[in-house]
Amino acid sequence: MKKIIEMIRMAKSAVILPHVSADGDALGSCAAVAELLSDMGIDSVIYAEERPEQRLSFISEKVKVYNGSEEVFDTCIALDCGDLERLGERRIFAEKAERVINIDHHKTNTFFGDGNYVDASAAATGEIIADLYDNIGAELSRSEALYLYTAICSDTGRFAYSNTTPKTMRTAAKLMETGIDHAEAARLLFDSEPLEIELLKAELTGNIRSYFGGKLRIVSATDAMAEKYGLDMEDVSDIVNIPRRICGTEIAAAIKETGGKIRVSFRSNGEADVSVIAMEFGGGGHAKAAGCTIDAENITEGEEMIVKVCGAMLL
Amino acid sequence: MKKIIEMIRMAKSAVILPHVSADGDALGSCAAVAELLSDMGIDSVIYAEERPEQRLSFISEKVKVYNGSEEVFDTCIALDCGDLERLGERRIFAEKAERVINIDHHKTNTFFGDGNYVDASAAATGEIIADLYDNIGAELSRSEALYLYTAICSDTGRFAYSNTTPKTMRTAAKLMETGIDHAEAARLLFDSEPLEIELLKAELTGNIRSYFGGKLRIVSATDAMAEKYGLDMEDVSDIVNIPRRICGTEIAAAIKETGGKIRVSFRSNGEADVSVIAMEFGGGGHAKAAGCTIDAENITEGEEMIVKVCGAMLL
Repeated sequence: MKKIIEMIRMAKSAVILPHVSADGDALGSCAAVAELLSDMGIDSVIYAEERPEQRLSFISEKVKVYNGSEEVFDTCIALDCGDLERLGERRIFAEKAERVINIDHHKTNTFFGDGNYVDASAAATGEIIADLYDNIGAELSRSEALYLYTAICSDTGRFAYSNTTPKTMRTAAKLMETGIDHAEAARLLFDSEPLEIELLKAELTGNIRSYFGGKLRIVSATDAMAEKYGLDMEDVSDIVNIPRRICGTEIAAAIKETGGKIRVSFRSNGEADVSVIAMEFGGGGHAKAAGCTIDAENITEGEEMIVKVCGAMLL
Repeated sequence: MKKIIEMIRMAKSAVILPHVSADGDALGSCAAVAELLSDMGIDSVIYAEERPEQRLSFISEKVKVYNGSEEVFDTCIALDCGDLERLGERRIFAEKAERVINIDHHKTNTFFGDGNYVDASAAATGEIIADLYDNIGAELSRSEALYLYTAICSDTGRFAYSNTTPKTMRTAAKLMETGIDHAEAARLLFDSEPLEIELLKAELTGNIRSYFGGKLRIVSATDAMAEKYGLDMEDVSDIVNIPRRICGTEIAAAIKETGGKIRVSFRSNGEADVSVIAMEFGGGGHAKAAGCTIDAENITEGEEMIVKVCGAMLL
């Protein structure tokens, strides 16, 4: 941390980079670091790969969308990026900078920076940035606290995922003490969905298939279904949560027919290790979350194959 | 708090009572107090008015459902109850007890006990019980911590509602330090819904009406719709959140045709004061949440009346 702070102090001009498809943690961390640098008298710019999600508009005011700019910054700060590939086109900034600072919480981080601060026990990169403020002795303004709260709340699913630690809660407590409207921040993150996405999810809910007394529940979606609501399949990445949140579900699966392929996501609510199921089809993952691409003609055939393998585990 | 602790120490036999339709906060607080009493060598029984929700089954193992029992306990501890009416039939225990202890966080509490500890700044009664443990100097076991975590997580919507304070977060941090599976507790509370409820909600989602460019969004449900899924209207109390969570919604309304009446719930996401709207129809509430019963023949007529009043506020 000390080395990172020294490197930041050497900066004359800095570019701050969230990962591609930037989420609340990446963008919130970037916005907080930009304000910290500004407090230290250092000019900086945040470049995102794409236009950020609508719900993060209060942060994205501070964010430029990368347009091929050939600017050169002496310092490049990558936040919440596990490796250089996560910078996409903006990797060029890292290549041209005198020093690259890599601050992240992903276990798989490749330590690609000249200075690396990687803490896999942190629930969010925002939690590490809050530590950075502490270590520098910088005071948190209300807007900085709001950025960091958004970062942490986003990556912890409102402090509910298993990555949330007592330290996460205490960090959030400090942020809340600045008087931020934390309830509104949480609402924007988790209770502010486009109507089209809710309509597609409602259609999928109405079409949940239950097997083995509800221990296995499956939904499926096709590119055509997404299109019907004016959506890309990318917009509805989390549909496996639809069967997952039904009580009694032990294994949830979402089958997507997209780009001519049959992709499956699995989640386990209980004892079942879904990485074993995904591996049967050449995929992988963790005990609680795994995925694979299935060699099937269509969703119906893919579903039959999944039911067979899951049944062997559940019965 | 001191007086309350003295009163608890005098108990030889205690009955612990959550409010009618007990929720996670009421039941979690009761279970934690029962264990605390047990640690102090005091026998106790928890009586609920009705069988608790399925999702709280790990707590309800400890809870008896009131069956008209005429037992007498010297000490009656009411938890999370704003007034004696919230005890329902079990009020008899309070009437017969030598001392009634009232611990609660509702602003409207009537101080009905012989000893009252009411802290309206606490997000949950569970937060007060955690203080009680501290004040008594009792160590929290993992099961006690899980009960209190459930209580607090439940009443704060996963630490996301505006009632959540820095103190709430720090209390939760302490509970988490005992090594509880907090993510599983949060999942049971918020991501474990009966399929029938999700199906009804999906039908309502598919039928959201948007007015004034989406600033006003309305859903409606009838007893017959609920019955179709084998549900009572009571089971789906929170349907106003369906239009509320769509982005762009400033006012959300849920119209229920139930028991021959047209009832409406309003929520505001923004500046609109929905209590003003509810008052137009003889109802009331707060700026962000209000309700009324409308004198209309049916949902269609009720909706027309609502749209007219809301339009005057939104346009």
